[in-house]
Amino acid sequence: MQKVRLGPETLLYPMPAVLVGAIVDGRPNFMTAAWCGIACRKPPAVAVAVYQERYTLKGIREKRAFSINVPSTSMAKEVDFCGIYSGRRKDKSGMFDTFDGSRLEVPMVSECPVNLECRVMQIVEVGSHVVVIGEIVECYVSEDCMKEGIPDPMEINPLIYSPKTQTYHKLGESVGKAFHIGKGVKG
Amino acid sequence: MQKVRLGPETLLYPMPAVLVGAIVDGRPNFMTAAWCGIACRKPPAVAVAVYQERYTLKGIREKRAFSINVPSTSMAKEVDFCGIYSGRRKDKSGMFDTFDGSRLEVPMVSECPVNLECRVMQIVEVGSHVVVIGEIVECYVSEDCMKEGIPDPMEINPLIYSPKTQTYHKLGESVGKAFHIGKGVKG
Repeated sequence: MQKVRLGPETLLYPMPAVLVGAIVDGRPNFMTAAWCGIACRKPPAVAVAVYQERYTLKGIREKRAFSINVPSTSMAKEVDFCGIYSGRRKDKSGMFDTFDGSRLEVPMVSECPVNLECRVMQIVEVGSHVVVIGEIVECYVSEDCMKEGIPDPMEINPLIYSPKTQTYHKLGESVGKAFHIGKGVKG
Repeated sequence: MQKVRLGPETLLYPMPAVLVGAIVDGRPNFMTAAWCGIACRKPPAVAVAVYQERYTLKGIREKRAFSINVPSTSMAKEVDFCGIYSGRRKDKSGMFDTFDGSRLEVPMVSECPVNLECRVMQIVEVGSHVVVIGEIVECYVSEDCMKEGIPDPMEINPLIYSPKTQTYHKLGESVGKAFHIGKGVKG
C-alpha cells in the first residue's frame, strides 16, 4: 500500500464529539471535546484532553469534578456551538436541560443519551493541553436507549467527529461481534 | 428524559478499535485497543489505555515507542483476533504487512489506512490500566484514502467499537460541518 506522509498530526478515526460539563463561576458550562477516551477499568475512568486556556478547565480544577455527555446526532448544532464559543463570552447555562450528579457537584445534560459523572483523579500536563483523568462514579443512560437491559448504540445514535474534513457523522451499521469474529483467524 | 443508572461503567460512544504496535521480545506485536484518544495539539500526542499485564506494554516500556494503526472495517476479524489473543501465546508478527517507522523502532501495519508513529512521553499509572501518552512524530495515510489532499473518513472506513453490545460498526453518513453548523444557534 502506497502511503502519504502528513507529518505530525492529531489524526484518529473515529473521534467522539462529547460535551464536557462543569460548574464554572457558579453556573453550568459545557465545552465540546473530540479528544476523549476511556482510561481505566478499575477504577472506571475516562480521559479528556483540554486546552490549557479553556474556561471549563477552571471549573474542573476548582470543583475537582466534571461530566462527559454523549450527544446524539440530533444535537449536532448545539454541540458545534459549544465547540465554537467559550463560556467566557456566551452563557451556556440555559442551553440544555440539566440534572445534578448524585455524588458530585456537576451538571449533566438531560438530552444527551449517555452521561458520565466524574471525579478528577489526575490532571496530566502534556503541552498545549492537559489530560484530565476522572473516575467515573456513575453512568446515566436515557431509558429509551436501553434495549434488553443494555445501552443500544443505534438508539444512542452518537455524534462522531472526523478530523481534517471537520465533519460530524452518524454511527453506521454493525459489521460483527467483538471477541467472537476473530476466533477463527489464523494468527 | 427518564434516566437509568448503570453504576460506574466504562461507557463512551463512539470508541475506535485500533491496533497498537510495538516490538516485543525482538518481533512486531499488535494488540487491539478501544480506549484511545488524542491527548494534545502541541506537541501532537495520543493517549491509549493499556492493561498493566499486557504483553505489548513490555515492548512499549522497553523501546519507548509504539504505533497506532487505524484499521478499516474489512480488517474486523484480524483486529478482533488481536484483541482476543495475547502475543505471549500467539505470534502475530506475520499477520500483517508491516513497515518501519521513519524515526523510531516501531512496526506499522501497511493494510491500515492511517498509522501514527509515536514516541513515549509519559506512562501514567491509573489503576488496572496505565495511560500511555505518546508524541506523534509522523502520520501515514494510504494514498487511496486521500481526497483533495486530505484524508477522507469514508474512504478510511474506520472500524468502530461499541461497548456493552460488543459490536463493531461502520462510520455512517455525514450530518454536518463542524465549526460551522453551530454558528446560528442561540446560546
